[in-house]
Amino acid sequence: MSLSAGPGDRYVVGVDYGTLSGRALVVRVGDGAELGTAVHPYRHGVMDAVLAADGRQLPADWALQDPDDYRDVLRHAVPAALAESGVDPTRVIGVGIDFTACTVLPTLADGTPLCELPDLRTRPHAWVKLWKHHAAQRQADRINALAHERGEPWIGRYGGKISAEWQYAKGLQLLEEDPEVYARAERWIEAADWIVWQLCGTETRNVCTAGYKGIHQDGRYPSRDYLAALHPGFADFVTKLDGPLLPLGARAGGLTARAAAWTGLPEGVAVAVGNVDAHVTAAAAQALEPGRLVAIMGTSTCHIVNGTEPAEVAGMCGVVDGGISAGAWGYEAGQSGVGDIFGWFVAQAAPAGYASHEVLSAQAAAQPVGAHGLVALDWWNGNRSLLVNHDLSGVVVGLTLATRPPDVYRALLESTAYGTRMIIEAFAGAGVPVDELVVAGGLTTNTLLMQIYADVTKRPLGIIGSAQGPALGSAIHAAVAAGAYPDVPTASAVMGRVERDVYRPDPGRARAYDALYAEYRRLHDHFGRGGDDVLLRLRAIRNAARQAAHDPADEATVPLEVMA
Amino acid sequence: MSLSAGPGDRYVVGVDYGTLSGRALVVRVGDGAELGTAVHPYRHGVMDAVLAADGRQLPADWALQDPDDYRDVLRHAVPAALAESGVDPTRVIGVGIDFTACTVLPTLADGTPLCELPDLRTRPHAWVKLWKHHAAQRQADRINALAHERGEPWIGRYGGKISAEWQYAKGLQLLEEDPEVYARAERWIEAADWIVWQLCGTETRNVCTAGYKGIHQDGRYPSRDYLAALHPGFADFVTKLDGPLLPLGARAGGLTARAAAWTGLPEGVAVAVGNVDAHVTAAAAQALEPGRLVAIMGTSTCHIVNGTEPAEVAGMCGVVDGGISAGAWGYEAGQSGVGDIFGWFVAQAAPAGYASHEVLSAQAAAQPVGAHGLVALDWWNGNRSLLVNHDLSGVVVGLTLATRPPDVYRALLESTAYGTRMIIEAFAGAGVPVDELVVAGGLTTNTLLMQIYADVTKRPLGIIGSAQGPALGSAIHAAVAAGAYPDVPTASAVMGRVERDVYRPDPGRARAYDALYAEYRRLHDHFGRGGDDVLLRLRAIRNAARQAAHDPADEATVPLEVMA
Repeated sequence: MSLSAGPGDRYVVGVDYGTLSGRALVVRVGDGAELGTAVHPYRHGVMDAVLAADGRQLPADWALQDPDDYRDVLRHAVPAALAESGVDPTRVIGVGIDFTACTVLPTLADGTPLCELPDLRTRPHAWVKLWKHHAAQRQADRINALAHERGEPWIGRYGGKISAEWQYAKGLQLLEEDPEVYARAERWIEAADWIVWQLCGTETRNVCTAGYKGIHQDGRYPSRDYLAALHPGFADFVTKLDGPLLPLGARAGGLTARAAAWTGLPEGVAVAVGNVDAHVTAAAAQALEPGRLVAIMGTSTCHIVNGTEPAEVAGMCGVVDGGISAGAWGYEAGQSGVGDIFGWFVAQAAPAGYASHEVLSAQAAAQPVGAHGLVALDWWNGNRSLLVNHDLSGVVVGLTLATRPPDVYRALLESTAYGTRMIIEAFAGAGVPVDELVVAGGLTTNTLLMQIYADVTKRPLGIIGSAQGPALGSAIHAAVAAGAYPDVPTASAVMGRVERDVYRPDPGRARAYDALYAEYRRLHDHFGRGGDDVLLRLRAIRNAARQAAHDPADEATVPLEVMA
Repeated sequence: MSLSAGPGDRYVVGVDYGTLSGRALVVRVGDGAELGTAVHPYRHGVMDAVLAADGRQLPADWALQDPDDYRDVLRHAVPAALAESGVDPTRVIGVGIDFTACTVLPTLADGTPLCELPDLRTRPHAWVKLWKHHAAQRQADRINALAHERGEPWIGRYGGKISAEWQYAKGLQLLEEDPEVYARAERWIEAADWIVWQLCGTETRNVCTAGYKGIHQDGRYPSRDYLAALHPGFADFVTKLDGPLLPLGARAGGLTARAAAWTGLPEGVAVAVGNVDAHVTAAAAQALEPGRLVAIMGTSTCHIVNGTEPAEVAGMCGVVDGGISAGAWGYEAGQSGVGDIFGWFVAQAAPAGYASHEVLSAQAAAQPVGAHGLVALDWWNGNRSLLVNHDLSGVVVGLTLATRPPDVYRALLESTAYGTRMIIEAFAGAGVPVDELVVAGGLTTNTLLMQIYADVTKRPLGIIGSAQGPALGSAIHAAVAAGAYPDVPTASAVMGRVERDVYRPDPGRARAYDALYAEYRRLHDHFGRGGDDVLLRLRAIRNAARQAAHDPADEATVPLEVMA
């Protein structure tokens, strides 16, 4: 694979929209070579304390973004990546994007974000709600209770629980807390689809976010009756969502003159429909085959695996027909804290001399399995899959006066591996096989962690061959949208990259981990499945104590509607 | 109270034998004024890795001492304290000692320690077994099982469990692992009684260690039948223990010429019978009245309280008639890790900038009760009272990405207070009232900790008025032995010192702690009383993993009898 641009080569651009920045990557269509890349940070980052427009405080658990920051990525990162690549822009045949999800915003019928209307700029609900906006739990609880009460056919496809992060909970929060903004929202759209609309001038919806975040199943959204029972004003919610629904890799339209001017790309090149960061990574890692589970491991982990049949897997995020690639049922699960927990340990619990991943990993690696005597529950940031509860918290058992920092660090690494094994076993138990792992993301460089995952899950573990998995995946979808390949699997086979079987489970260690995993599982069920709800009670006590103390740092916990 | 020696004053010397050193204190009989003190560290400290005599490795959990180190305290600390005090030695009328317990050694009939016989110096079993020698758990398990099986009348007096630290378990280990040394041990004697023997030339036994550590109840030791059923060779064990049993504060004899030469004290002055560090502290803290619980808080905590009646309190260390002071039933309980846990946190879990008790306490003190959202089980060093299991370990629940070092530190302080409340409630539930706490020991200077104890236990909390509680307590007993006071309570009222009600429970905080204590209690019973024995399984896994790995640092876990 040559890394210099040849005269006859064609190129695509993949744009990966993350939580704090967007990245553009110029990729050669013929072999997936990555020629140039650039990152542009969002000017307003995540607004989780104050609203940029007027500096007003936001309540606890809010997380907003400014949609113009997304346009800025097109204006800055794409031209910079092109420049770095040395590629002649006229050789670019398509552009594709992936986004965090569910990141969602209200717009007019022409795509104008409501927060860009002068009279709505100071209304928090007019802005983009980022995936990690967690202030709609009450709405999610009612959505779930009613779905189970009425026996809605779709609830099982989401493991029995619709997340507070998704389109319906966030939309219902909008309706209940700011009905005027809700009424003026002609469209309620994923940022993934909105930025595609900005690129090609045509509104589309992609089957991935429509399925995983929009409760679109078997060709239908939830019924008007169901929505009306949630709230009379919510009955017509689907009219804000509905639109041309396209499969992944489809062409949404051609690049507009305006977007061509932003990006430096030729007007009219193919724009692929929107997609999600985790899901495009499967194509980049050549892991579209059923049974090959992709784990995108960073601050948190997202798990993506194709299956041949639809199955209801309790506690999983969802299963969507064509949600990863057309022709397969795409399954998604997640762990809400992984790298974040290791980072917490280094920053908040490692004494001087130990406060580095390298030192801790090196010392932890020397230990035999089980020698530290510890098991932890990896719920520092709640539990996303299986238990689907953000109010759960972390547990460490087995501490002694002889416990040393590398012991606890290793126990934390292991706890996230046990969490992954719980998810794999839930899939397998529901008839969705998981034969191997393919890992992408920032944590792939920790060899101890990777070996622990192979040993704990007893599966061979491969590593994606690109440091820019999502952007490469978006580029692959752009190539398909441009007609360079007939479908995503074919493009993935040529343009994607993976090194398989980099880590193999060691039989002795795997056996030793079985005993520790059994302890994890018992603790998991005790603290997470009703044996003892102490974690939930402690969360309630904590919140009440902070509220009662009028701690200034916690004024944001006052719900928005009671603020002046 | 004048701190200079007056011409007509009389004095006593108290000697406190700790784990690593001995302290002498010169005290005025008339008012308890402390005139001079000196400490002498044991030359061989605690032998827990190798035997000083020949450098041989000791197995795991062993802890030995050299009895001559105790004589050195008399040779060095007593003269130094006298010199510092400026007291004329001829004005000294008595000497008293207290010791760690159960610290026990085998001797000839004349008091010669077996380890001082040339042919036995390299035999580990010939040396003093320190209180924290924990290698006799298997023997203790059999002692307990057999006692319950036979319905021995004394077992309830020890909360149902005889500790591996006490005379019988250590004695049985000696018999089973080195029968020759056992056979040559004409006496098996507490170090407290042995050092008194060294001072006055007469063997005595004190009712305190005979009761708490020697299973002497209602005038009897365990029966020959019971002991023979444990091991045929153990049938006559009591003959090694039996001797003149004297109440606390009694005169064991007069100072010998040899001991007078060591100490610089006049030959013939009264020597009080032996006593235990925790128990003498009650006299020093004017806390002999029933209902006034003395907590000696340092690396671990010992609880001492008098009651008017004998009661069986499950999981407590013991109840002994006259075990604290004649005429009352003395109750003892303990927590095996307290200051040790806080020290562990500072050394092993506090990041740079937080690694001091002062910083952590100051920041933790600013929090409202419950605001950290954490509860811990304080079992870093096992659980001494209630559960009586050294294989238990610590637990922390409620950790989040927002958890900060002072949060965990405060949770650890609180966990030990919850442990104390468990003990108090066990006493109260068995009919032994605890109306107030009097705290002695090194942790009394942590005002946050003291206030937490008052709030959690909902009892007023006083502080001993001496920094040398045990040595002052021994001096009080010396004064009684010398006839200066008719009994220990009378001497305590004059010579002891306490500031009562220094900390009072705050009703709001006490109420808030009730909810957290309920969580502690539920976790305590789940992990400690059979709900989930995960901690015991993790300990077994840990030990097996270390053994299997042939970690050189852990070769000592091989039991002694299988060593070459």
